[in-house]
Amino acid sequence: MKLELDPDRLFPADPQTRETARALYAAVADLPIISPHGHIDPRLLLDDEPFPDPAELFIRRDHYVTRLLHADGVDLADLGAGTSAGDDPRAIWRRFAERWHLFAGTASGYWLTHAFATLFDIDVEPDSATADVLYDTITMHLARDDYRPRALFHHFGIEVLATTDDPLDDLAAHTALAADPAFPSRVLPTFRPDAYLDPEVPGFAERVERLAAMEGTTPGDFAGYLEALESRRAYFIAHGAVSADHGVREPYTVELDEAEASALFTRALSGDMDAGAARAFRGNMLLRMAEMSSRDGLVMTIHPGVYRNHSGTTFDRFGADTGHDIPLTTTYAENLRPMLERVGLAPDLHIVLFTVDETSFSREIAPLAGFYPSLFIGAPWWFLDAPDAVQRFRSAVTETAGFYRGAGFIDDTRAFLSIPARHDMARRLDAAFLARLVREGRVSIARAERIATDLVDSLPRKVFKL
Amino acid sequence: MKLELDPDRLFPADPQTRETARALYAAVADLPIISPHGHIDPRLLLDDEPFPDPAELFIRRDHYVTRLLHADGVDLADLGAGTSAGDDPRAIWRRFAERWHLFAGTASGYWLTHAFATLFDIDVEPDSATADVLYDTITMHLARDDYRPRALFHHFGIEVLATTDDPLDDLAAHTALAADPAFPSRVLPTFRPDAYLDPEVPGFAERVERLAAMEGTTPGDFAGYLEALESRRAYFIAHGAVSADHGVREPYTVELDEAEASALFTRALSGDMDAGAARAFRGNMLLRMAEMSSRDGLVMTIHPGVYRNHSGTTFDRFGADTGHDIPLTTTYAENLRPMLERVGLAPDLHIVLFTVDETSFSREIAPLAGFYPSLFIGAPWWFLDAPDAVQRFRSAVTETAGFYRGAGFIDDTRAFLSIPARHDMARRLDAAFLARLVREGRVSIARAERIATDLVDSLPRKVFKL
Amino acid sequence: MKLELDPDRLFPADPQTRETARALYAAVADLPIISPHGHIDPRLLLDDEPFPDPAELFIRRDHYVTRLLHADGVDLADLGAGTSAGDDPRAIWRRFAERWHLFAGTASGYWLTHAFATLFDIDVEPDSATADVLYDTITMHLARDDYRPRALFHHFGIEVLATTDDPLDDLAAHTALAADPAFPSRVLPTFRPDAYLDPEVPGFAERVERLAAMEGTTPGDFAGYLEALESRRAYFIAHGAVSADHGVREPYTVELDEAEASALFTRALSGDMDAGAARAFRGNMLLRMAEMSSRDGLVMTIHPGVYRNHSGTTFDRFGADTGHDIPLTTTYAENLRPMLERVGLAPDLHIVLFTVDETSFSREIAPLAGFYPSLFIGAPWWFLDAPDAVQRFRSAVTETAGFYRGAGFIDDTRAFLSIPARHDMARRLDAAFLARLVREGRVSIARAERIATDLVDSLPRKVFKL
Repeated sequence: MKLELDPDRLFPADPQTRETARALYAAVADLPIISPHGHIDPRLLLDDEPFPDPAELFIRRDHYVTRLLHADGVDLADLGAGTSAGDDPRAIWRRFAERWHLFAGTASGYWLTHAFATLFDIDVEPDSATADVLYDTITMHLARDDYRPRALFHHFGIEVLATTDDPLDDLAAHTALAADPAFPSRVLPTFRPDAYLDPEVPGFAERVERLAAMEGTTPGDFAGYLEALESRRAYFIAHGAVSADHGVREPYTVELDEAEASALFTRALSGDMDAGAARAFRGNMLLRMAEMSSRDGLVMTIHPGVYRNHSGTTFDRFGADTGHDIPLTTTYAENLRPMLERVGLAPDLHIVLFTVDETSFSREIAPLAGFYPSLFIGAPWWFLDAPDAVQRFRSAVTETAGFYRGAGFIDDTRAFLSIPARHDMARRLDAAFLARLVREGRVSIARAERIATDLVDSLPRKVFKL
Repeated sequence: MKLELDPDRLFPADPQTRETARALYAAVADLPIISPHGHIDPRLLLDDEPFPDPAELFIRRDHYVTRLLHADGVDLADLGAGTSAGDDPRAIWRRFAERWHLFAGTASGYWLTHAFATLFDIDVEPDSATADVLYDTITMHLARDDYRPRALFHHFGIEVLATTDDPLDDLAAHTALAADPAFPSRVLPTFRPDAYLDPEVPGFAERVERLAAMEGTTPGDFAGYLEALESRRAYFIAHGAVSADHGVREPYTVELDEAEASALFTRALSGDMDAGAARAFRGNMLLRMAEMSSRDGLVMTIHPGVYRNHSGTTFDRFGADTGHDIPLTTTYAENLRPMLERVGLAPDLHIVLFTVDETSFSREIAPLAGFYPSLFIGAPWWFLDAPDAVQRFRSAVTETAGFYRGAGFIDDTRAFLSIPARHDMARRLDAAFLARLVREGRVSIARAERIATDLVDSLPRKVFKL
Repeated sequence: MKLELDPDRLFPADPQTRETARALYAAVADLPIISPHGHIDPRLLLDDEPFPDPAELFIRRDHYVTRLLHADGVDLADLGAGTSAGDDPRAIWRRFAERWHLFAGTASGYWLTHAFATLFDIDVEPDSATADVLYDTITMHLARDDYRPRALFHHFGIEVLATTDDPLDDLAAHTALAADPAFPSRVLPTFRPDAYLDPEVPGFAERVERLAAMEGTTPGDFAGYLEALESRRAYFIAHGAVSADHGVREPYTVELDEAEASALFTRALSGDMDAGAARAFRGNMLLRMAEMSSRDGLVMTIHPGVYRNHSGTTFDRFGADTGHDIPLTTTYAENLRPMLERVGLAPDLHIVLFTVDETSFSREIAPLAGFYPSLFIGAPWWFLDAPDAVQRFRSAVTETAGFYRGAGFIDDTRAFLSIPARHDMARRLDAAFLARLVREGRVSIARAERIATDLVDSLPRKVFKL
């Protein structure tokens, strides 16, 4: 079957509306990519080595892809997923190619199609007959200098790319990239302290001890712990970080007084903690992180509501991020209130709220961001970063919060080649949404043009302080 | 930028479907407005004074408007919002005008555009350059006799308008209006007893004491309390009321026996009440109100699921209704069951269920209203009273409950000039929805015409007993 | 008013997309019907008696129909609903006919229109004027041999039909049908053990005792109870069953050890059980059923999240399945985890997840089925088995799970004549959805054609092991 990239893809069906969408998209299609949150390893760009093979590039590391193959009965080990050793990359590719139909209509299928067509001149769908020739085609391209990471980075038009980093990371890769005159783009670290804030994550005490050692604060002391966290944030800021990211199961916050918090900290270090106490500790720490953001200016992004590593057996065999993280019901109004009572009206504080429970968009996130100057609406994330879901998102939030309480698009990806596909998708979908509002007489075409540009340019720059 | 009112606004994109929508809308566009629930002050119509200025008319009192300006960083005091003193109205207007782009795509933006274009001959968007001339244009109109409240009321084609009133209100304004031969329209009071039913609202005991004093019932006695409430309802009915409105945080109901209820009442008056007891008291009282409705015929409207006054600081500075009421997850099937077991099959009882958690439309509200003859589906309310949300609502409820379990449109507004815009919007959206069903072969055009009329005429008259 | 069946019904409005949908539908319109879950009584086909009258055929037994008439104020007794004696069938029909407008836009209205037009040559809508002539027209047809159940079964093109049966049923009707050379189609029993797994269903102990007696296991013994259940499953399998169906209020699972489970069983039989213990018992039994499915191969279907018999008064007067079953908030990720930890990766285990809380489609069901090879996405069910709801469903699940984690369409009906209408509706809606993806450049037309066929053919055969 032929693989094609429709130049009008994702635009509305009605010809007149489609024409409007086409015009709105044309004005933003070539603007630089601003990517303020994602999971690309900075060493990819520092080392600038050729990508090794199609399986490594498209399959093994992309848990959106491996999970659907797994659901179809393929063992993750046969895909080289997670911590598994991997197999002959061509064999992995074949397993994927003969199951390409599984991806029809999915977000992953859309991004892969985009990469295949725009980067590798592929014009047939993968299947068992075409698997080998496609593998060879991609491999041939990957050997070229203009397919190395830096060349692609420039080809994609990326102006800013944020990575996601451990608080104790020395950020040497970022420092080296920033110092390299041959690489003028910005690659920024992001402070991601989850494992240092949650007593229920294995290794918490040991990790907190290393934190204190690194910063020279008193080990086992709550004030010292806060001081060390703040100090690491300062280190990240000094190395270009603009945001701190929080991947909590629930966006629960609570304000504990010094004595309570300190006592819980002591219990957390000793491992003597029940679920309620751990929740209180985490809830207080999320609030404290917001306080720190109100002081040091790091944008706070909250990515809540995911049951991580749902399959114990799979986690034991292959580790985290292997396709079985499952969204949960997530609510914000009551959970965030203690934090907002504390800092919700603070000047220059920026908090971006994400969700994988789309019911919260119209019910809580838009109303909250439609009042609190500190709150912004995060782009549809993870399972919701897909054409129909994005249209549902725009429909759910815009009527309450307009276009200017959003934070712009965030690709949040580990798949380097999907970055341009994702940003292009977002721009097309916003053009499609705006074109509908124009067709329905709700927004003038002149206003729609301005909004389309703001969504990819001034809005992410403002919200992420770039 | 130009400000225009597209005569085809809100109609579907497909030309053939649009043509059908246009025809369906034309048949209802000029029918009288029936507004059985809202927040207009009756003294506005009694006094019939000119509106003072554009800021007072469009900004200060409209928390849909002030909240988005606040989210953009404007202090509510600089908007004259809530209990703040206000500023030079022209300065307030300017702050709004230069942020007009924030309202693109919002419900408020839509209503304001409608009022600007239809009432004030405005054809440019507000911005910093046009702010003053628009201010002067509106001011000039407001000085005219045909822009006084009564003249606009008639111009809008309002046949019935319900207000929302405190149970102890003497309804003098309503009485005077009803007695005024120069004002033949109906302005009806609505019984809103929330603050007399919830022990956790500050001042509960004192309020209940005044209630007993007014009705001459034994103070501190539960039976007397119920008697006084029923007596006030009778007073409202005698003054034209057709409904009682209940703005509870959750639609929880429970049936307590006389002794339990009485003991809780005693505790409530003494302020000795924990959260569980207060919940039980409220839940029992909501059920008792339904019982009273089944006896005295007042339509019961339930507007649940809102966390009121989310920002404590803002509430302390500016009071209630200042833009930080946030929807909550709301469920009905289990919460309402005790009440429905008691009176759900009672003849002539009408209960209208509203929600700001749109997930409940298809899951619970349509199935409940599709069985219980006492239950009707309230129009999309508050954050959901907007074009896309209304289409989602119709889509969510119609396949289960049809068109005839609804209660017609409710504007629920404090913004007098938005009344015609809102009703017009509802009529256009229903025409659009019906036109789609016609285009999809699901409803005949003849049937659609009949339904379109029933939705704005016979349905609200029947459900609200007008 | 005229009653017509638009040949393009349910197709998208845009002419070009509509043309594509028409082509996709044409390829599947006449494929055989596979109905792996429903509520037709097998004796209907065994006895093959003429349907008695229009009221019996279309109204009395269809709680989708009676509930909307009840909501309009008709007593269920006047419809012959549930256990009520019934009235003159013509009088029942008249009550329905004069309220036909209530069904405009509903799923039931759509199915009834399909049956009226395709089977009875009816071309006017029911109303008080046409009621009698329509009654006579239908009655006249019902007297014909080609309107007997078996003739219609063949006319509808049903290849496989599953019924739903009590575990102690001797399946004599199925045996007789299978042995009848004049009836070559497959009518399969389905094992539905709810009442044997839930201690809170009245008569639990007595039922469990009969189970033990039938299978000759030790009464009052937990191991014997499990053994008897497994033995009944084997009996069903021997009689052609391919699935076991579970209609739980919540999909809660928990793994108890032998001793705990046994102790709870003893308490369950003695009736000495609180809500928490009953929940634990049910949760453990649901997990045990999944284990049995992983051993004996019966496909497990889970239909959770319904508050059955919401109106106590109605249940007392008319029994179950009389229109007042109300959906509840339903979550899966945490509830199903113990079961999935136990058997989620088992080879050849098939579990189909249904929901009446559509928020779970994108949030939990698609992500779960997009990873676990044992999990499949059930078709939109009950209140969600309707045109708009089906489009919302496809939109919600496809971007995460694609088309191949679904289980095909399931009519789940008690209304025999609605079977072709429902399957035809599903095929039209899938064609419409696919046509939109084609128009949006997301799926090629060749791929869409293949998917359309797989959805009605290979997918249900694979998932239900037919």
